[in-house]
Amino acid sequence: MTTLRKASSNAARRSEASRQAILTAAFDLVNEVGYAKLSIEGIAARAGVGKQTIYRWWPSKGMVLFDAFLMLGEGSDGEAVLPDTGDLEADLKAVLRATVAELNDPRYDEPMRALNTEIMHDPALAAAYAERLDGPMKELKRQRLRDAQRAGQLADDLDLDVAVEMLWGPLLNRWLQRGGPLTSEYADAVVETALNGLRPRR
Amino acid sequence: MTTLRKASSNAARRSEASRQAILTAAFDLVNEVGYAKLSIEGIAARAGVGKQTIYRWWPSKGMVLFDAFLMLGEGSDGEAVLPDTGDLEADLKAVLRATVAELNDPRYDEPMRALNTEIMHDPALAAAYAERLDGPMKELKRQRLRDAQRAGQLADDLDLDVAVEMLWGPLLNRWLQRGGPLTSEYADAVVETALNGLRPRR
Repeated sequence: MTTLRKASSNAARRSEASRQAILTAAFDLVNEVGYAKLSIEGIAARAGVGKQTIYRWWPSKGMVLFDAFLMLGEGSDGEAVLPDTGDLEADLKAVLRATVAELNDPRYDEPMRALNTEIMHDPALAAAYAERLDGPMKELKRQRLRDAQRAGQLADDLDLDVAVEMLWGPLLNRWLQRGGPLTSEYADAVVETALNGLRPRR
Repeated sequence: MTTLRKASSNAARRSEASRQAILTAAFDLVNEVGYAKLSIEGIAARAGVGKQTIYRWWPSKGMVLFDAFLMLGEGSDGEAVLPDTGDLEADLKAVLRATVAELNDPRYDEPMRALNTEIMHDPALAAAYAERLDGPMKELKRQRLRDAQRAGQLADDLDLDVAVEMLWGPLLNRWLQRGGPLTSEYADAVVETALNGLRPRR
């Protein structure tokens, strides 16, 4: 029984090592060759596994890439929260500036564009993304806004989903569509405009 | 000379007819087969032209599709403006609801996702899109906001570029990422939240 258990545990370790090698290979490779040329064959060769190993676990290159992003998140602790210094405007600016830096990071640019391409064309992947990656992130954002709302810093009747889209949406769009420079100044302007609204404050 | 001129004019007409046949074929075909399977060969076959004719005029299938979108716009008159009834909130809701209807139109869904995919991965196409399609649209939007600003309905120091992104960005994002239902109610909520801002109005 011990031998059996050891064999099974060794197999699990080998599986986990293969999984990590595949996900790392997918992430690296999409950066090097671009998403259009990313293939299961290429990922398999880079990871040193047979392509059947990949097909056994993932239905498409989009899902491999999606899991590669999930793996990136596994390193950070699960208790992540957005900063709360009591100064909502400053905290939001810090977080949106960090988002800008991430979107501008050349290591993530091509993989994130690839993931967004797949989401755009594959409703099943979009649902997985909404549930497992974007959903938890949005809940963190809503939580910070909810605390501010309780402290009277945000309107009582504010729809927090709309508020989250209004803060992060303009950054994501500008990045996706390359519609203009994605800078810290832009992040600051978005925060100020969203908080104050377009109408004059008297 | 008359004969020469007639021949040249006939050639121009034939070119224009081919151009329109190619653009229509691209638009129809991307709807039927999806963007991944759209090919220059397929467009050529559907349009009844040789593929060299397409390659002579366009460097990629993305640029063909982009011109197909430009052609759609050619039908509308060049004097388009956003509605101005004096009620900014009502006007913006009408326009954003129309945007929602367009994004939800099954005829445009796949071609627009395809165009956005290309924009995401092709900086040259993104620049052409920003200059020739998105730029003029954004100027119309800014113009309506500028008029409201002059009438004292919007903050004096409002950055109109940020305001435009804050109104239309959440719709585009929700559509691109399939992040939730894209409805008239959502359009209304975006307009109200953007105008009032996240902070309480006292």
